Amino acid sequence: MNDSYAASVTVALIHHPVVDKNGETIAAAVTALDLHDIARAAKTYGIGAFYVVTPLKDQQELVRRITSHWTNGAGAQYNPDRRQALEMIRIKPSLESVLEELSQNGAQRPKVVVTSARMEHSSLNYGNLRSLPATHGPVLLLFGTAWGMADEVIEAADFRLAPITGGGDYNHLSVRSAVSIILDRMLGDDA
Amino acid sequence: MNDSYAASVTVALIHHPVVDKNGETIAAAVTALDLHDIARAAKTYGIGAFYVVTPLKDQQELVRRITSHWTNGAGAQYNPDRRQALEMIRIKPSLESVLEELSQNGAQRPKVVVTSARMEHSSLNYGNLRSLPATHGPVLLLFGTAWGMADEVIEAADFRLAPITGGGDYNHLSVRSAVSIILDRMLGDDA
Repeated sequence: MNDSYAASVTVALIHHPVVDKNGETIAAAVTALDLHDIARAAKTYGIGAFYVVTPLKDQQELVRRITSHWTNGAGAQYNPDRRQALEMIRIKPSLESVLEELSQNGAQRPKVVVTSARMEHSSLNYGNLRSLPATHGPVLLLFGTAWGMADEVIEAADFRLAPITGGGDYNHLSVRSAVSIILDRMLGDDA
Repeated sequence: MNDSYAASVTVALIHHPVVDKNGETIAAAVTALDLHDIARAAKTYGIGAFYVVTPLKDQQELVRRITSHWTNGAGAQYNPDRRQALEMIRIKPSLESVLEELSQNGAQRPKVVVTSARMEHSSLNYGNLRSLPATHGPVLLLFGTAWGMADEVIEAADFRLAPITGGGDYNHLSVRSAVSIILDRMLGDDA
């Protein structure tokens, strides 16, 4: 994949609105390792940006503290590779504000692709995901924390990506694993 | 992939001998989230087992405490899906003891495939990894913690897997992401 192709893809990790174990809509807490693992995958596959979406001010501040430790603080000197990854993180309060930023200055509004392990009626397979930037332009991939994104986000998306299957019935990957596998299926050079 | 094919694949996460940032051989500490994420991926792709390898007794005990919380304790009731994943974990003090267990009762000793982001002379691409159980029988995939496995482990392996590349020069995935992507490339049903 060439550089501009991957750069037209962005990932957003949604902490609200997501559902808990009982299906109630909540704002999930930020997990530090989600930031690290997903930023490292985002940098490896050369995508445009990694948005961390939470409306909670204290959680936004937590994300800022974690990233600045690694981008400006002691961590940046200890591990420069980590700095390059965490520099990809942008913090936004809502999906709508992510779409606004990506559509600035006349840029084409990205197609929103929603992912879910529980997807019942998918509208996009992996072959079509791979060609989506060529056929439809910029792509924003949404990943949910907790027990997944609320139905309203799934229904409003342009495309619903087929779940990752490993051959059996068990399908409970971490969001860190799911982002890694989906970026690899979309942008990886599986030689 | 059929069930017996995936079941002939095992993963070992090596905590010793691995190297630190300066290339010194160390025994790395166990990270709880490695156990969870890799066990969930192992269960999703239906592999035979997930070995956690550390010679340190206190670290073995830590792994036992984490897994038993989720397989017998309060966690098992709270989240039965997690129990199914963490039941795949087996604790061993060394790579040799993993190979001994897998070769018991006349079973064919698995081919050892070593992975590394720093691999300079790989001997196996992903197409051949995918067919390896058919061409060579059982496969043991080794993943290193810290800054990767010591050279002696890499040199002693039957095959050295090509590094995961995402199109650019940056190649610093977490071991959790690397295991997920490699199992998907080997066993995934990328429809």
